[in-house]
Amino acid sequence: MYPDSIKNLIESFKYLPGIGEKTAERLAFAVLDLDIEQVELFSESLEDVKKKVHQCSSCNALTENELCFVCSDSTRDKNILCVVEDTKNVFLFEKLGMFHGYYHVLNGLISPLDGVNPEDIGIDKLLDRITNDKFKEVILAFKPSIEGETTALYIKKVLSGMDVLVTRLASGVPIGADMEYVDSLTLERALKDRKEIE
Amino acid sequence: MYPDSIKNLIESFKYLPGIGEKTAERLAFAVLDLDIEQVELFSESLEDVKKKVHQCSSCNALTENELCFVCSDSTRDKNILCVVEDTKNVFLFEKLGMFHGYYHVLNGLISPLDGVNPEDIGIDKLLDRITNDKFKEVILAFKPSIEGETTALYIKKVLSGMDVLVTRLASGVPIGADMEYVDSLTLERALKDRKEIE
Repeated sequence: MYPDSIKNLIESFKYLPGIGEKTAERLAFAVLDLDIEQVELFSESLEDVKKKVHQCSSCNALTENELCFVCSDSTRDKNILCVVEDTKNVFLFEKLGMFHGYYHVLNGLISPLDGVNPEDIGIDKLLDRITNDKFKEVILAFKPSIEGETTALYIKKVLSGMDVLVTRLASGVPIGADMEYVDSLTLERALKDRKEIE
Repeated sequence: MYPDSIKNLIESFKYLPGIGEKTAERLAFAVLDLDIEQVELFSESLEDVKKKVHQCSSCNALTENELCFVCSDSTRDKNILCVVEDTKNVFLFEKLGMFHGYYHVLNGLISPLDGVNPEDIGIDKLLDRITNDKFKEVILAFKPSIEGETTALYIKKVLSGMDVLVTRLASGVPIGADMEYVDSLTLERALKDRKEIE
């Protein structure tokens, strides 16, 4: 009953996560109200992200160039490397604007239950980079899940012979959280990692 | 900090209603995980809806052809015309599958406060059609708001000299609603329009 192009557009919106039939219909009709210039930019950028965006040859973050905007910035702190599980996390940290070292993006986290082993997430490339670029500190900025902890422990182990400080993000009670909504594992960690008030 | 194409795609998603910065970012990254074929169809259908879709020359519903799928269907009931304020409502009724007459889409509703007068919403074209096609019943399927009631009363008045039954949708308590959540205007209407139990 919908014209073909509207039907195709509704189907396309439905490919995206969290968008069901109703929302897809609403968005497709909203496109009709956009300017043709806006729609052309939208259409173009869709194809561009698939065709132009690829991984940075050094850190694996997404970029349209050989090196990403961090790796190509020689003014950053060459002593610290922040390892993340996903390129999106690079942008999260960059938005904070308080980290000035380099990043390395793994291809996910080790998860033996899902058949994801160290070689699948590109740990060899990470080790080569740490060896060649002589970082003094490696921050393992993974989420505090079983997979995150497993991956952190594995990397800590393979780096044990090298002269590099391996750190992880602090875990604990989120700022602003009500104590009764904090889960017991987080509370346990917050208690264990308690800090002296200075 | 984002590659240009990702930045443009985030901006494009933000043009759409109900999509803010965070959602736009999430959707843009999700596009990276789609197949290139899916993205090409997405991109193509975006431009197509703007370039191919226009109003049906008879009823104003959206179509890619001269006549929409309803107007070009000669098996429908030629006695009944359902007048709606927006092309989306045609699809809403068609999904029900219980209305077999024709539609006429107005360009919104009369709203003197917003400067929208009868001539702005295409009532002349509606009158011409009712006169030429000799409908026996005209259903005014507007939402029960001040604008909806104003538009219905106006059309009822201009049709008063013609041999046509003018009806409106029933208003009342929505099926499944809890009585305490029904607003007083709706309850008033439901009481006024009460029906004998058969």
